[in-house]
Amino acid sequence: MTDLLEKLRRALTAHPPGRKYLVGVSGGRDSMTLLFCLHVLGYKKLIVCHLNHGLRGRAARADSALVSTTARRFGYLVCVEETEVRAHAVKQKLSVETAARELRYAFFRACAKAHRCSSIFLGHHADDQVETCLFNFLRGTGAAGLSGMKAVTHAHGLRVIRPLLGLSRDEITAFVKENDIRFREDATNAHFSHTRNRLRRRVIPAIEKAVGPAFRAAILRAAEILRDEESWMASMAPEVGKALCCETLRSMPIALRRRVVIQWLRQEGVPEPGFAETNLVLSLLDAKDGPAKVNLRGDRHARRRTGRIFLEGPIG
Amino acid sequence: MTDLLEKLRRALTAHPPGRKYLVGVSGGRDSMTLLFCLHVLGYKKLIVCHLNHGLRGRAARADSALVSTTARRFGYLVCVEETEVRAHAVKQKLSVETAARELRYAFFRACAKAHRCSSIFLGHHADDQVETCLFNFLRGTGAAGLSGMKAVTHAHGLRVIRPLLGLSRDEITAFVKENDIRFREDATNAHFSHTRNRLRRRVIPAIEKAVGPAFRAAILRAAEILRDEESWMASMAPEVGKALCCETLRSMPIALRRRVVIQWLRQEGVPEPGFAETNLVLSLLDAKDGPAKVNLRGDRHARRRTGRIFLEGPIG
Repeated sequence: MTDLLEKLRRALTAHPPGRKYLVGVSGGRDSMTLLFCLHVLGYKKLIVCHLNHGLRGRAARADSALVSTTARRFGYLVCVEETEVRAHAVKQKLSVETAARELRYAFFRACAKAHRCSSIFLGHHADDQVETCLFNFLRGTGAAGLSGMKAVTHAHGLRVIRPLLGLSRDEITAFVKENDIRFREDATNAHFSHTRNRLRRRVIPAIEKAVGPAFRAAILRAAEILRDEESWMASMAPEVGKALCCETLRSMPIALRRRVVIQWLRQEGVPEPGFAETNLVLSLLDAKDGPAKVNLRGDRHARRRTGRIFLEGPIG
Repeated sequence: MTDLLEKLRRALTAHPPGRKYLVGVSGGRDSMTLLFCLHVLGYKKLIVCHLNHGLRGRAARADSALVSTTARRFGYLVCVEETEVRAHAVKQKLSVETAARELRYAFFRACAKAHRCSSIFLGHHADDQVETCLFNFLRGTGAAGLSGMKAVTHAHGLRVIRPLLGLSRDEITAFVKENDIRFREDATNAHFSHTRNRLRRRVIPAIEKAVGPAFRAAILRAAEILRDEESWMASMAPEVGKALCCETLRSMPIALRRRVVIQWLRQEGVPEPGFAETNLVLSLLDAKDGPAKVNLRGDRHARRRTGRIFLEGPIG
């Protein structure tokens, strides 16, 4: 067994071949490699899920054809669907990338329901992880974002498993050549935003030139540490009710206060709460010089009354 | 009062003009601006510390001359010294940048002792902070490194104060032009490594082109959050003795285990312990399949015996 297959087999220990899984396959190099490897490793009950995003016309139909043909040759069930990402993006005022992700996960959920199977394999690898960490670093997302994607996670109503996360793009490329795996070049990058593509094509090569190739391992190592620190910190944040007690908040270290407030804002349905909203709410703690009411997005506001902080407004 | 001076005055609230301070001045734009501003803001008892690193020959002497002249014109005491960074680097097997930093702080400490004043102002600004965070991100240093420099910190036996940390390079450049502040162009970058200069000249412009200028504010915001989370987590790590108790370690979340082990390795004088050393020591916790002894740098080793982990070897 080759090195790559052996690594993959180890990454899949908790997900044995006998069970049923969905697998998301775009037709690009990474997901076609994942499909090939799962086949070689003896996975029999796969349902291959492929969404044509309606972004690449005839080329996309060729992607779909390649995925279907390969999947059938391996004896797998195939779920193929076409959608209109651009229309969805315009209607919902989303970026094309976000719209594509929403529709893709909705499609995966539909497949999961139809096939009574909520575990799905996806083809993200170590270089995707590095890009995700860098992208999140530049967006200022804090420890949660800096820790990148998890190997196994529950998201969008699915159990998402990423068996390639420990493998580099170079390893995969070499394996593709050795095994003559067919894939569609453009399908790989079809869902990435311009920003993400610019990071990949301009920024990452500039970083490599400046500091050498070791930065990838360094970022992945830091991501692992941050992932564990993030879940440790998350485990220490107490659950909160409809109102926050000022006295309790004041007794907490600032880092914990921020976590409690952002969790509370999310729970109360304030849209996309961040650093600014958290600081606004925390300014209510200063009973002497601070405000008694602050305005938040979506016409909501937070108010301090008799030592507690309440959320008021349309959805509350 | 201009915007910049007003911001600076606020950043200096806890460090009033009446007291005595050292100020590190290279002759570059940032430290010359700091010196000018402190003078305008009424600081009378400054001791201007300038180290000629012996790296730039005659040009460095011109730096020293500019610093001395300016400082005397403002009525400040001047401490100037010459050193040989390259010789120190070769002798101690350090990078030129690390050697320069060591000698610079040794010089500052000597000034502090001579003038009985351990508070020192340094000219790092917001763009230096962004570079530091990016540099540390690419080195995989985790939350401590990602949180960047602190506005006030105790390090190298000094109380280091960075009043410009909230100001951008552009703000400072504009202020320099408006006020016709004299500085030496090359002195600014003299102590940075090639890596650091490449980050500044190649990587940061590539990032700006890819994601727009807002990434700086995003990084600074994340650094602030991480700084507070770092000190919260640090406050939760218990003090450790000469030996670690396996039972206690096992009961901790992995993130806390790592912190305890790295703190213990540092305390016991293991040179530069990191992720790899920490994992080695943690592998001792597996009494069934793990090793009973692991080798560390500097001919030290950690050993598990009767439920406790000990450090053995030359320095222990």
